[in-house]
Amino acid sequence: MDIAALAQKNPAHWRRAAAIRTLTLDAVAAANSGHSGMPMGMADVATVLFEKHMSFDVTSPDWPNRDRFILSAGHGSMLIYSLMYLMGSEDMTLEQVKNFRQLGSITAGHPEYGHVTGVETTTGPLGQGITNAVGFAMAEEFLRAKWGKKIIDHYTYCIAGDGCLMEGISHEAIGLAGRQELSRLIVFWDNNNITIDGTVDMSDRTDQVARFKAAGWDVFEVDGHDPEAIDAAITEAKATPRPAMIACKTHIALGSSAQDTSKGHGALTDAQLIADAKKAYGWDNAPFEIPADLKAEWEAIGTRGRETREEWETRFALMSEGKQKEFTRAFAGDMPKKLTATIKALKKQISETQPKVATRKASEMALEVINPILPETMGGSADLTGSNNTKTADLGVFTPEDRKGRYVYYGIREHGMAAAMNGMALHGGVRPYGGTFFTFTDYARPAMRLSALMGINVQYVMTHDSIGVGEDGPTHQPVEHLAMMRATPNCLVFRPADAVEAAEAWEVALSQKTCPSVHVLSRQNLPTVRTEHKTKNLTAQGGYVLAEAEGKREAILMATGSEVSIALAARDLLQAEGIGTRVVSMPCWELFEEQDEAYRRRVLPGGPVRVAIEAAIRFGWDRWLFGERGKREKSGFIGMHGFGASAPAGDLYTHFGITAEATADKVKALLGKG
Amino acid sequence: MDIAALAQKNPAHWRRAAAIRTLTLDAVAAANSGHSGMPMGMADVATVLFEKHMSFDVTSPDWPNRDRFILSAGHGSMLIYSLMYLMGSEDMTLEQVKNFRQLGSITAGHPEYGHVTGVETTTGPLGQGITNAVGFAMAEEFLRAKWGKKIIDHYTYCIAGDGCLMEGISHEAIGLAGRQELSRLIVFWDNNNITIDGTVDMSDRTDQVARFKAAGWDVFEVDGHDPEAIDAAITEAKATPRPAMIACKTHIALGSSAQDTSKGHGALTDAQLIADAKKAYGWDNAPFEIPADLKAEWEAIGTRGRETREEWETRFALMSEGKQKEFTRAFAGDMPKKLTATIKALKKQISETQPKVATRKASEMALEVINPILPETMGGSADLTGSNNTKTADLGVFTPEDRKGRYVYYGIREHGMAAAMNGMALHGGVRPYGGTFFTFTDYARPAMRLSALMGINVQYVMTHDSIGVGEDGPTHQPVEHLAMMRATPNCLVFRPADAVEAAEAWEVALSQKTCPSVHVLSRQNLPTVRTEHKTKNLTAQGGYVLAEAEGKREAILMATGSEVSIALAARDLLQAEGIGTRVVSMPCWELFEEQDEAYRRRVLPGGPVRVAIEAAIRFGWDRWLFGERGKREKSGFIGMHGFGASAPAGDLYTHFGITAEATADKVKALLGKG
Repeated sequence: MDIAALAQKNPAHWRRAAAIRTLTLDAVAAANSGHSGMPMGMADVATVLFEKHMSFDVTSPDWPNRDRFILSAGHGSMLIYSLMYLMGSEDMTLEQVKNFRQLGSITAGHPEYGHVTGVETTTGPLGQGITNAVGFAMAEEFLRAKWGKKIIDHYTYCIAGDGCLMEGISHEAIGLAGRQELSRLIVFWDNNNITIDGTVDMSDRTDQVARFKAAGWDVFEVDGHDPEAIDAAITEAKATPRPAMIACKTHIALGSSAQDTSKGHGALTDAQLIADAKKAYGWDNAPFEIPADLKAEWEAIGTRGRETREEWETRFALMSEGKQKEFTRAFAGDMPKKLTATIKALKKQISETQPKVATRKASEMALEVINPILPETMGGSADLTGSNNTKTADLGVFTPEDRKGRYVYYGIREHGMAAAMNGMALHGGVRPYGGTFFTFTDYARPAMRLSALMGINVQYVMTHDSIGVGEDGPTHQPVEHLAMMRATPNCLVFRPADAVEAAEAWEVALSQKTCPSVHVLSRQNLPTVRTEHKTKNLTAQGGYVLAEAEGKREAILMATGSEVSIALAARDLLQAEGIGTRVVSMPCWELFEEQDEAYRRRVLPGGPVRVAIEAAIRFGWDRWLFGERGKREKSGFIGMHGFGASAPAGDLYTHFGITAEATADKVKALLGKG
Repeated sequence: MDIAALAQKNPAHWRRAAAIRTLTLDAVAAANSGHSGMPMGMADVATVLFEKHMSFDVTSPDWPNRDRFILSAGHGSMLIYSLMYLMGSEDMTLEQVKNFRQLGSITAGHPEYGHVTGVETTTGPLGQGITNAVGFAMAEEFLRAKWGKKIIDHYTYCIAGDGCLMEGISHEAIGLAGRQELSRLIVFWDNNNITIDGTVDMSDRTDQVARFKAAGWDVFEVDGHDPEAIDAAITEAKATPRPAMIACKTHIALGSSAQDTSKGHGALTDAQLIADAKKAYGWDNAPFEIPADLKAEWEAIGTRGRETREEWETRFALMSEGKQKEFTRAFAGDMPKKLTATIKALKKQISETQPKVATRKASEMALEVINPILPETMGGSADLTGSNNTKTADLGVFTPEDRKGRYVYYGIREHGMAAAMNGMALHGGVRPYGGTFFTFTDYARPAMRLSALMGINVQYVMTHDSIGVGEDGPTHQPVEHLAMMRATPNCLVFRPADAVEAAEAWEVALSQKTCPSVHVLSRQNLPTVRTEHKTKNLTAQGGYVLAEAEGKREAILMATGSEVSIALAARDLLQAEGIGTRVVSMPCWELFEEQDEAYRRRVLPGGPVRVAIEAAIRFGWDRWLFGERGKREKSGFIGMHGFGASAPAGDLYTHFGITAEATADKVKALLGKG
């Protein structure tokens, strides 16, 4: 690589890009960890993008109509941090850059959403960012149609590495983007032929250009170190009617002795290597030092979007006050005031009519009243629309022909759906929900974890939640997934018992501003257990007394979802024998845990025997069986002890002993009355 | 569709295929659930495959050198069940077919491995089968090189649907197969343009032919209802030096009124529809009735591989007795006798030299002595070889140029790796292990669940198991993953405390015949805590007393992995203050749970206060804190309460309060000595 020739070809550009490269080298050296090579390789692309194309104003980084920039290759976080520091972002001080990867700094090892201005999404787990970008672009298309292009009209740019493109999720992302003809989505492929284990071709020889074309993308190929070529490609990519991939042939760790090697992917901390690289760049400043004139150039780049933003603000101010309020509400993630009244009315109707419906259907009933008053929802399913009950009457279908459509046919892409929903939620102005079978939480897991880690409001509609699935058998019957999701921090897991709890769950879930929710819903019909209307949202307490013991309280039955009606039936059996039995419905453990201890003890007092009933494995239940003044000797569990089986659902409940009779017997045995 | 013309073109073939179609219709109708359309659409392909190509002998279905047939589109299970019944497989009685999807029958909704002859792998979760098939084909290549083509020399066939090809994992599968030039792998794409939500193009317009070519496959396109064309394509596909995809243009639910519709994908149970379809087929037999002459034709097909098998058995018998024994041992999954002695010797050496190494390094030390005596191991990593410590000295690298190589560079494909390993383990003769970061268990989850559900010996080497990861931050720091995997039935989760436990874990894990194992390993160095050599494998008990209290036993500290040494340090602090403290190491909860209650109570007696220490969330620990005669008031947990952060590991342990001092303080507070 003739670095000198590159530098001479466009010295002004070269110097700006060198600032990124040297800040990266210095920060990684200071941290003694990190990834130097990626920012060094993609500095030219990033420089051209921000200098010539990004509609971004560092003084107003949250402006809703900004272009979005997503670093899918998140290990190259110093690329963003360098850009933000150079452009003069308020939070990205030199001190922060110097404290790269240290406790308490905002400059985390991987870009963390909410920590740093300019980080639109948390990346690091490969392939997530490119799929988030698809969601951003979908949100932009929807909002442009909804609000008009005077209000929303921007591009989504993404840098993806070989790792992103090798991950399976990238297939789902590019297929979805190709089908949806997301012409405002532009992905740069950092084509450096290096992974951690060696050269890419050791494990992959995919023709990426042909692959993207096969998915309906336009592809441009450039020398990733030639600023004019990069600029021209971006200009072309912006003009195509399809999503665009710009294949950037780059050299990882450009200009260092680790260039084009796996070593260059990681932390370059050797002082001589760094000195030699800086020399090759023609860079003779002290570590972390950016000459004032160069900083000024970058700060000008940082506000290249200011005029556009100001014009937008003028246009925005011309909208009616009502529209402005609605736009602001939607972007703030606030619920409309009438949500509570709407849910109350639905609950009242359910308690009165007492339908026997599956909770997946109950969820649809809630969505039927929510979607009309929450026009920013975008629903969807990973090819299980009729099973997940996610499509309500007037949503329309989101397609290139109808960008106002609010329902997405995601295809058989659970992982892609979840990650795209993350992008939609992060974009703002849109509230995504999407469905699949609960067992396929497994497929969506990496993106669901990121919903929780970022603390964003994404709604997962997970139906067919137990052996109640029936004949489809153990592959389709979740048994450990409740534990898996309950174990995930910052995520509400709702398993409603009936249509009232399902409606309450939706109200609570949509009202959260800092976490996603999972709605775990039955395939099979369930009776209404909340037969007495209460205006209060009981599900918001996580657990509550659904039926009190008559006479002396000898037993407490705890259950969730489809097993609550079994608990009630068991209570009938026990009460008939004079055994006073309380039933506690626990639709959301996380919310119950958040209640004060006094409330929890009122719901689960010490003394009576306790039996938990859930058509899932026991893992996690000990918290409630023993932990709230319960005792091992006086506790039992009715549920699954392993994987399920293929048979009609009723047969399975009997076969696995999840019945009212078995529950009553367990209680009696614990009471010594067996 | 002119069914009559199809029937007339090749009446003998048509009738054989019609037998599959009608058995499917009858079984689904009897079950009143299932998927009719797929077997009806692919009956021609399956008939030609078994009639003209499959080297399979239904009277010896486990013959090691048989061709493998994998139904990745597992919802079409009646295709396999029909084939097996028609060919006369011993277990597939007509009674079983009639009891499709009923409790106790082997004819589960989706094909379950171990239930049915001819089902090589459990399928249903889409995309798994095609990736298993890649693993089968890799195992075949390796074994052919190892044992010679007189002993192993077969094809792997797979039927995949649109769903399989839309799932992200299929991208990983075809990329890996293309790179590895798996010429014995032949995938039929059931190209029917129908998914559950509607036509495929509603959600996907990928040019699959171009896509597979981009990944290095050869592609053939045929009319999936033309037996001659199918036969010719298979013949060609077998001859290419690359993996082959045969795109079969088919009609789902062929010949019924639901043909080419989403309805046709599901259960066709309408009597008139079934009658009309049978009439169109020219089929006038009673439900489930197969005319004797037709059954005889199919039974002849069922033994078309018999001669080949018998010739193979002759060749096998000519091998030396030692080789025969070794082959049989490897396929039986038996461990060589010297494994135990080898591990003992390693343990002794470790206890004597007391190295301070990360458990990922300790795992490598174990593999360094295991791989030479277990020549069927095939290791690998999803592009983290140097971090996962999975590559030992003399493995060689598995490539098209070296099929004897035992190390696979899987690329950035955690999910693909896991599913391919499932295929390798299912093939037999190979023992796969593969590594990634523990946090990326998320990516591999769907395939890991299937390892557990099938009960096969796959070894997951999951390193960087906690905030000990350090600077890479919360995306790379698992906190809920221990709970997630411990909650998964039939899976051993090992989190060894030092190099001795790591070696013991490998011995126990490899010796299992009915479950996979997960090795959860530290990035950071840990002291040897098993400083006194014991010949007994203590890890096999799951939990054991590592250090006894001196004086009156007032406290029990429970810990796993990297926190065991913290527990020991806390014990030192407490003993210095005269507080008798026992330390219990719990490397494998599942095995501890399997011990009898008396043993568990000896290890965790009631009375002393209990504190568990684990750099993960508490979820699940209540089982041991309260459940084994513990009490809530006298229990505590030192660990994580949410996601991690980006900083040096030591700083994080201090920041999150996972220290010996915090542990000792907690114990003193519980004892009222704080």
